Amino acid sequence: MSLNSYGHVFRVTTWGESHGPALGATVDGCPPGVRLAEADIQTWLDKRKPGQNKYTTQRREADEVEILSGVFEGRTTGTPIQLMIRNTDQRSKDYGDIAEKFRPGHADITYWQKYGIRDYRGGGRSSARETAARVAAGGVARAALAHVAPDVRITGYMVAMGDKDIDRARFDWDEIGRNPFWIPDAGSVELWADYLDALRKSGSSVGAMIEVTVRGCPPGIGAPVYGKLDTDLAAAMMSINAVKGVEIGEGMAAARLRGEENADEISMGPDGPVYSSNHSGGILGGISTGQDIVVRFAVKPTSSILTPRKTITKAGEAAEIITKGRHDPCVGIRAVPVAEAMAAAVVLDHILLDRAQTGGVRGPIG
Amino acid sequence: MSLNSYGHVFRVTTWGESHGPALGATVDGCPPGVRLAEADIQTWLDKRKPGQNKYTTQRREADEVEILSGVFEGRTTGTPIQLMIRNTDQRSKDYGDIAEKFRPGHADITYWQKYGIRDYRGGGRSSARETAARVAAGGVARAALAHVAPDVRITGYMVAMGDKDIDRARFDWDEIGRNPFWIPDAGSVELWADYLDALRKSGSSVGAMIEVTVRGCPPGIGAPVYGKLDTDLAAAMMSINAVKGVEIGEGMAAARLRGEENADEISMGPDGPVYSSNHSGGILGGISTGQDIVVRFAVKPTSSILTPRKTITKAGEAAEIITKGRHDPCVGIRAVPVAEAMAAAVVLDHILLDRAQTGGVRGPIG
Amino acid sequence: MSLNSYGHVFRVTTWGESHGPALGATVDGCPPGVRLAEADIQTWLDKRKPGQNKYTTQRREADEVEILSGVFEGRTTGTPIQLMIRNTDQRSKDYGDIAEKFRPGHADITYWQKYGIRDYRGGGRSSARETAARVAAGGVARAALAHVAPDVRITGYMVAMGDKDIDRARFDWDEIGRNPFWIPDAGSVELWADYLDALRKSGSSVGAMIEVTVRGCPPGIGAPVYGKLDTDLAAAMMSINAVKGVEIGEGMAAARLRGEENADEISMGPDGPVYSSNHSGGILGGISTGQDIVVRFAVKPTSSILTPRKTITKAGEAAEIITKGRHDPCVGIRAVPVAEAMAAAVVLDHILLDRAQTGGVRGPIG
Amino acid sequence: MSLNSYGHVFRVTTWGESHGPALGATVDGCPPGVRLAEADIQTWLDKRKPGQNKYTTQRREADEVEILSGVFEGRTTGTPIQLMIRNTDQRSKDYGDIAEKFRPGHADITYWQKYGIRDYRGGGRSSARETAARVAAGGVARAALAHVAPDVRITGYMVAMGDKDIDRARFDWDEIGRNPFWIPDAGSVELWADYLDALRKSGSSVGAMIEVTVRGCPPGIGAPVYGKLDTDLAAAMMSINAVKGVEIGEGMAAARLRGEENADEISMGPDGPVYSSNHSGGILGGISTGQDIVVRFAVKPTSSILTPRKTITKAGEAAEIITKGRHDPCVGIRAVPVAEAMAAAVVLDHILLDRAQTGGVRGPIG
Repeated sequence: MSLNSYGHVFRVTTWGESHGPALGATVDGCPPGVRLAEADIQTWLDKRKPGQNKYTTQRREADEVEILSGVFEGRTTGTPIQLMIRNTDQRSKDYGDIAEKFRPGHADITYWQKYGIRDYRGGGRSSARETAARVAAGGVARAALAHVAPDVRITGYMVAMGDKDIDRARFDWDEIGRNPFWIPDAGSVELWADYLDALRKSGSSVGAMIEVTVRGCPPGIGAPVYGKLDTDLAAAMMSINAVKGVEIGEGMAAARLRGEENADEISMGPDGPVYSSNHSGGILGGISTGQDIVVRFAVKPTSSILTPRKTITKAGEAAEIITKGRHDPCVGIRAVPVAEAMAAAVVLDHILLDRAQTGGVRGPIG
Repeated sequence: MSLNSYGHVFRVTTWGESHGPALGATVDGCPPGVRLAEADIQTWLDKRKPGQNKYTTQRREADEVEILSGVFEGRTTGTPIQLMIRNTDQRSKDYGDIAEKFRPGHADITYWQKYGIRDYRGGGRSSARETAARVAAGGVARAALAHVAPDVRITGYMVAMGDKDIDRARFDWDEIGRNPFWIPDAGSVELWADYLDALRKSGSSVGAMIEVTVRGCPPGIGAPVYGKLDTDLAAAMMSINAVKGVEIGEGMAAARLRGEENADEISMGPDGPVYSSNHSGGILGGISTGQDIVVRFAVKPTSSILTPRKTITKAGEAAEIITKGRHDPCVGIRAVPVAEAMAAAVVLDHILLDRAQTGGVRGPIG
Repeated sequence: MSLNSYGHVFRVTTWGESHGPALGATVDGCPPGVRLAEADIQTWLDKRKPGQNKYTTQRREADEVEILSGVFEGRTTGTPIQLMIRNTDQRSKDYGDIAEKFRPGHADITYWQKYGIRDYRGGGRSSARETAARVAAGGVARAALAHVAPDVRITGYMVAMGDKDIDRARFDWDEIGRNPFWIPDAGSVELWADYLDALRKSGSSVGAMIEVTVRGCPPGIGAPVYGKLDTDLAAAMMSINAVKGVEIGEGMAAARLRGEENADEISMGPDGPVYSSNHSGGILGGISTGQDIVVRFAVKPTSSILTPRKTITKAGEAAEIITKGRHDPCVGIRAVPVAEAMAAAVVLDHILLDRAQTGGVRGPIG
Repeated sequence: MSLNSYGHVFRVTTWGESHGPALGATVDGCPPGVRLAEADIQTWLDKRKPGQNKYTTQRREADEVEILSGVFEGRTTGTPIQLMIRNTDQRSKDYGDIAEKFRPGHADITYWQKYGIRDYRGGGRSSARETAARVAAGGVARAALAHVAPDVRITGYMVAMGDKDIDRARFDWDEIGRNPFWIPDAGSVELWADYLDALRKSGSSVGAMIEVTVRGCPPGIGAPVYGKLDTDLAAAMMSINAVKGVEIGEGMAAARLRGEENADEISMGPDGPVYSSNHSGGILGGISTGQDIVVRFAVKPTSSILTPRKTITKAGEAAEIITKGRHDPCVGIRAVPVAEAMAAAVVLDHILLDRAQTGGVRGPIG
């Protein structure tokens, strides 16, 4: 019942605080025989790493992962994999002010009320720094997917930031890795850069919308009724810091449609069923259809801004707070690799689960 | 790891198919000493019951719940509570056509592909009829909440249907129970009725948006980092049939806001912290703030419509399908009591969890 | 975290009280496509059924199981299977005395202290009647084993009762089903019958030792370090009413051996590794070796006896109690089919788990 | 469903191999506000540490624990506590021979068969070295018990080794910590020392029986029907390396008793119910009575002995093996602190669970 864990069979528990000695992930349930080296995980951590460009926090962390267990001679052994990342740039002095005051929009006040104690340095456990552990665990999930379901490809990208939306007519998978916003739309990069520059200079911040697409997932993955693939994806995304909404396929817009508009008609293709559209986001009744799985979520704007905000102290006195630390004008950017990692873990988990449930038997069509 | 279960401490497992002999919920972890009779649960089932007006399916089910265990002399004993609802109106003949054809937008095809066998009668396990079991379990959760946290009030209501939105300026809690749409806006009732009448007559359907508000939840309920209160609420809502998106507080709109707009400033009131607004939806870092908890979700339009849709048969042959059964033009209406039930279960579960975690200790403010 | 559940993938939750309307088991995680009818389960329930001979309680229960969900056209669908057994012979009047007094050796006092309420009729939830639900769930496990691992055979039998031990030199698998004690030793039947007759007439009771052997389990089933096959078997047996000790293979006697005596030497046979002995009970490091899996447990004597015992009332007053109800002089007899059922559930569960973990890959030898 | 985890609310996951860089425990669910420093944990690790006297393995490990998360300013924060112990004395050369041959009585062969890969160095994950992580986690459990249930005292000790038994007439709690065998019987120390010396010199080994007593546990802790306190204790002990049997209270001997002999009669004392004896081992129906909780288990003799044993190689060829490494003639000695740690974790877990279930309500007597 660990509340810091996710996954049924591929089970990840993250641990660590922003300014403690280290953070990491305990990964249990990874299949044996998966090729895995620290470099395989480091690749993904480097995508998330802060301080890479002017659009993300200037905190400098090496974010070097160590594998402490579960791998022998370059392969997983089926035993728990412990991933550790040392915190190197802790600069506690930056955070002195928040020991007494609660930052609006942060979990400072709720942690205090719940636990009667909190590690206030950099937000402690509630810091977005925790997501480094998720990305590391996601690296293991990716390696395992390459082993058990090599056709699966998981790609995250931003689709909106404040009032800017990507132009889906220009959607280009190859563009995603080329720009600092992970957007699939080369035509928007400059516009977004200017917008974010202005925000950063004014000490403000903005929200964002991220989409993750899972290509190549076979049909039949997932489960009714509570362990649905979409339920687990939604929970995974909602568990990421600052996320306030999650959509599958048509998402919230489905509320506006009529039955005729929303139905994905089915026909028979050479390799199995083919759908006329993908309003379902690749999932029906909690189980994958074989189409692309599409999940989208909204990240709220960073609560740490330079405009003073009203708050109270632990003593209950009125106060103002400006968060001067090193922060992201748009935390949504760094949520992209985090969301990919979570999606990888969920999809792998359900593929392993399906082996237990059905042994891979499939109802034949045609 | 039961995939048909939810909850950490208050653990519900639903079972049963649309056209089997019965369906129900196994409820484990209810505190002892809670007053509970079948009538307490029946109240909520009656809210959800089909056939009550022309806007919901004409299937007639008594939906009478029996308590088979866990209650002695009118009080819960701390042992599992088994709730059973007999299926009385099964009319299997209505569903003959769907034995061979997969209905677009339904889970027929994915269940078949996953399991190689499916109870096609009325959708079997994937039928919205399963939600009766959720409502019954929610009745137990409500009774337990009255015992352990009597200030908690949980209310669901529709906020949109197709292109119709409620007018929040006219929001009236008392209106919700007075109209067939569970809307808090008396001024919209007639308009919605006409709209849905037209839809029903044309054999079409429409999506909807539902909101659930939890009032009176104390601060400090919930948990980082994966068992967050908002994560569990999102998962609970996403697990309901036909739900495609879930939002907490500001929701997807948070992607559009700037940091200054989104911050809920804090001041000190006579009974504790007071917030200038509730963009957070009553949850920060996965833990309740003491404000109203607000969760919203979208239900897609019923896939069963009178317009023929293209599909395939089990043999892989092209076909057309019209679903002639007794269906809801807007399944969103009946999702309201279901969502309330899920919210009740999640909130109760986290209140019990909090007793384990902290023993109810709270960090004092002021 | 349901405390009334067992199993990781094949997850069973039992519910119901001795004198409530019904009891049963909610079985989730059974693979799809398994042939299953009520008669398949009834066979095992009939083995456990009370009142079959003079050595077991004279309570008369039809113990007829109904399958309420999860089976369609004679096969499991992969959805939860609800098994219900109506209580027919409830005779509440027998149990009036125990409403106020706590029976020594029973859970009356601890249930009362824990919950502040208890269903005292026949012991309520703590009655051995709960094991009927386990046997029913075991019937499902047996059917699933026949589907996924048809070589597995699970057999329970008594090996001791009071000071009587079977003579292992006369061990005969075929004898087990022929006598009322499930002993594999025809030469002891008469002796045991006389012994138990005398006990019954004197209103006394006696403990027993039961052994379960699992033949045909492939190597590689189980898991380190906490979800060990032997750990789960031990927990399963210890969870049965009145069990006070559990052993695997050599068991407690291993404490007395030297390393040379205890080692099972390995050689290569035509079908794989062969062992010179089976001190390990078929499990090394929590994982099956392919040898017979042997688990043994002790059941204490029925606490309900005709000799008056000192106790107290709810009011804390001294009292004497004689339990006049219909009871077993040796509850161990009826524990045999229960233990088989538990073993079947655990072995199936681990076979399904292994599919998730390894996909059935095995390290080749030779 | 992590198979390397235990506990419901207080959830421990151990990780690490004998000869990897480190091992440790991820502890989730510890209450906040518990005083905890590395020294509090080190105390218990030092009890288990190898190489302290000639009766335990001469492997020299500092076994220094580092707390990497979950503690702030000397108190737990309610977030996961990561405990890491570096492996310092790894001497891989000692273990070259076992890369190809399977040691009888060890998990070498089953790990290989299950996973198709194994870290053979020192037994990898199956090494008793894993128990260091358990002891560390137990240190956290002890600290938390001091916070939430300060009357609870948990003490382990040996009661038998080979054919030597302690004399219970000389039982002395204070003696336990004074001798290298953790025995409560000063009169047996010299005899046991001579016996073990002889064994060690001959390169042999012997099994042992260990008992753990929990004093001061309040009544009402535990739960029916599968999450019983005795079930969880039995599973905890059975999960320890080399354990082959577990008993509660009267244990296996209960099979030999009659009902009159086994009943613990109840009378009323000044502070509540008093029992005439403790055959039950302090647990009835899975719930604590308030008496001493007594659990006992058998450890098999170390399989690593100097007498050559027959085995096979990975290639399936016949071979002989002598394990020359640094080993314990009686691993049971070092199992004592391990068992204490497991008992502490289980008791704490159930005390926290009880807060969730009942909020600490108790049925009053008298």
